[in-house]
Amino acid sequence: MVCKAQTRTADSLWARQLADSVLLHDYAYENLRHLTKKIGHRLSGSSALVKAEEWGFQVLQKAGADTVYYQTCHIPAWKRDPDAYALLKLKNGKTVKLEALDLGNSAGTGGREITLPLVRVSNWTELTALGKKIAGKAVFFDVPFEENLVEPFQSYGKNAGYRTEGPSRAAALGARAVLVRSMTHNHLNNEPHTGTLRYNDSFPSIPAMALGLESTARLRKELLAGPEALLILKSSSRMYDSVEGRNVVAELRGKVWPRSYITLGGHLDSWDLGEGAHDDGAGIVHTVEVLRALKAVGYRPEHTLRFVFFTNEENGTRGAKKYAEEAKKQGEKHVFALESDAGGFTPRGFGITGSDLQLALFQQYSWLLDPYLGGKISAGGGGSDIAPLRTLLGTALAGLKPDGQRYFDLHHTRNDVLEAVHPRELKLGALNMALLLYIADKYVFAP
Amino acid sequence: MVCKAQTRTADSLWARQLADSVLLHDYAYENLRHLTKKIGHRLSGSSALVKAEEWGFQVLQKAGADTVYYQTCHIPAWKRDPDAYALLKLKNGKTVKLEALDLGNSAGTGGREITLPLVRVSNWTELTALGKKIAGKAVFFDVPFEENLVEPFQSYGKNAGYRTEGPSRAAALGARAVLVRSMTHNHLNNEPHTGTLRYNDSFPSIPAMALGLESTARLRKELLAGPEALLILKSSSRMYDSVEGRNVVAELRGKVWPRSYITLGGHLDSWDLGEGAHDDGAGIVHTVEVLRALKAVGYRPEHTLRFVFFTNEENGTRGAKKYAEEAKKQGEKHVFALESDAGGFTPRGFGITGSDLQLALFQQYSWLLDPYLGGKISAGGGGSDIAPLRTLLGTALAGLKPDGQRYFDLHHTRNDVLEAVHPRELKLGALNMALLLYIADKYVFAP
Repeated sequence: MVCKAQTRTADSLWARQLADSVLLHDYAYENLRHLTKKIGHRLSGSSALVKAEEWGFQVLQKAGADTVYYQTCHIPAWKRDPDAYALLKLKNGKTVKLEALDLGNSAGTGGREITLPLVRVSNWTELTALGKKIAGKAVFFDVPFEENLVEPFQSYGKNAGYRTEGPSRAAALGARAVLVRSMTHNHLNNEPHTGTLRYNDSFPSIPAMALGLESTARLRKELLAGPEALLILKSSSRMYDSVEGRNVVAELRGKVWPRSYITLGGHLDSWDLGEGAHDDGAGIVHTVEVLRALKAVGYRPEHTLRFVFFTNEENGTRGAKKYAEEAKKQGEKHVFALESDAGGFTPRGFGITGSDLQLALFQQYSWLLDPYLGGKISAGGGGSDIAPLRTLLGTALAGLKPDGQRYFDLHHTRNDVLEAVHPRELKLGALNMALLLYIADKYVFAP
Repeated sequence: MVCKAQTRTADSLWARQLADSVLLHDYAYENLRHLTKKIGHRLSGSSALVKAEEWGFQVLQKAGADTVYYQTCHIPAWKRDPDAYALLKLKNGKTVKLEALDLGNSAGTGGREITLPLVRVSNWTELTALGKKIAGKAVFFDVPFEENLVEPFQSYGKNAGYRTEGPSRAAALGARAVLVRSMTHNHLNNEPHTGTLRYNDSFPSIPAMALGLESTARLRKELLAGPEALLILKSSSRMYDSVEGRNVVAELRGKVWPRSYITLGGHLDSWDLGEGAHDDGAGIVHTVEVLRALKAVGYRPEHTLRFVFFTNEENGTRGAKKYAEEAKKQGEKHVFALESDAGGFTPRGFGITGSDLQLALFQQYSWLLDPYLGGKISAGGGGSDIAPLRTLLGTALAGLKPDGQRYFDLHHTRNDVLEAVHPRELKLGALNMALLLYIADKYVFAP
């Protein structure tokens, strides 16, 4: 017991030293300032993403990595038509502009204006019930973003399928276009929220847009009053030939099990709106800051730590797939991966996807995180960039869980900018990630 | 055990019903909109505070109180000179404007411009060491707001004494004016933060101002380079005759122990800057929302619940004293009081000042709060409006603990406005307060 208490004291002191290094400096925020203000948003296929890769390479080197390299893969190059529009044509002949944005990967209308009758559904059951009656029409998925769920991520989880699968499920029944309600409960503005759709190649790729909440309400009102309203759409958005994208990978070699890997990362690409500050600039600068702080306090990891900037999370997750496939091909052992892709807000804890024993071990060390606000460790978590590691290699996963109340005000919109990120909240995220990594490296995955 | 499990299920279901009532409506935010946008800031002695009292009376009636009444007391009427200024006169004769604000209750310079040599100290020890050397000078308390403390309230707790006691402690040594660094670690702007000072009547009431962080850095630089800089001050701010202020008190009568009281509240007054949105508009609308939601779900309390809008917290706490003194005079039994005066951010838990047994009992029910994010119950908490209840009557106290990272960006500044409050974060605060009140009423203080 004396021995255990001494270890605990040493761990506490180490954590405090790490906390000082993170809290007394502004590295994370200044890196985010560069990424958001000097580079800006960085959709797959954009020149900004290439710039971000090069910046990322340098930043990871400077933070003290033993080695940094690129991992290349094909990524989609989708381009938004900035002049795309959606109009509501009323029975009286008047038209009303809807605040609308093409969903990512949407095929657009080929640049032609199309006019379609509209039909509103509020869930899959209603869609199925209408069946072929929607043929030749535009389907409006008016699915509420449930406000009485405490965690907005839960509401998002319940709704995002309408955005990703809705277009093809409607096209399967003959629909010619889709509108979705933006995935947010922020009624304070009419900002549309983009996000990816996934076409099922068995059906036509029909155009799809997201509406701001005022426009959603307006459209609902018209359609509940009668079916006479028409939708006018025009968009030249479309997919171009795929291009080469790069994961940026940095390593700190392990002193005990150098061939056993722990991965930490976020995604470098973003939507082509705002600055991708919370999504996922925060995850990127968290990743750098963990590396920098571990080096600053002289930590020598037992496993080899990989710090990864994944490419193309938003509309393809090609970087994630490449990373896991390459790990499998090389026969690497990946014991653990941690992702930050839920924003740069004050951390509350982590979600863990692993065995019961792994979860219990992490929870046994929550006392080390508690003073830094991230000690709530629960089952279920990870992220789309590390998920393929679990599928291919059985890796245990974790995801940072920051306070989630403001995230879906900003997510995939013009408002996801540096100014929406708080320097201290951002730091605390990095600090807790570094502490979880330490717990994983030293205790949970000690063979 | 079956019985206990059934009670737990019933409590969970009740909490879910309450949560739906709070999360699916916008009452709290709409009340805050009225208070901030229609009434605005409301310093003791202002006509806006009178308006706020009348609004508060109506709002508490409408929310379903059995009875609402005013409790009157004398409150100070201090007025800020909007044209007050502080200039730094450099050795080369140039003057530089400092971003400065009179501290609340400051006596000003009587409207005359005064010019003083400056001396910088960074703690009490340095002040004491200088002793009479500061006579006839302006003392600049350049005390860092510690950034490596995780909770900004801890940093505030360590620093606020320089603002409240600094002017008289400097005056005791013959100083003629005081400047303090603003109580914030937000380096992203140069906004000065006001707040109260407390003169010790044994010494002259000297003028005192708070500086924004850029001005603080500028002044530090000049004074570290040499002692030649002079401070030029002018302010007509001063205290006027005290006026009548009112606590607004609403009651829900207890069905089992009607003569045993539980108090819930926040303060209605604010500083004369911004809109007093987080400080303490949030506490006010939390209080109303708890009452409204308890009525909406048909809760009949066992103790008599008091919902109190305290007056004059910022620069006198006269409302708090009046409330406790009156309770003592009437021989009332006050078992518990809960205050919200730490902002409208996402709740993390509550601090409890009471017996070990009371703390343990509250902690035993944290499972009821956990799903709503407020389950972290720790020792130590309350607030200045309920503190006199403990002193006079031994009442157990609790304070809501919201996420604190953004609070001292806004506290006592022009930026404490409605737009800095998030509707969902605000609701969650009210919800957790209602749940804690339920736990107190039904379990912790059941005789």
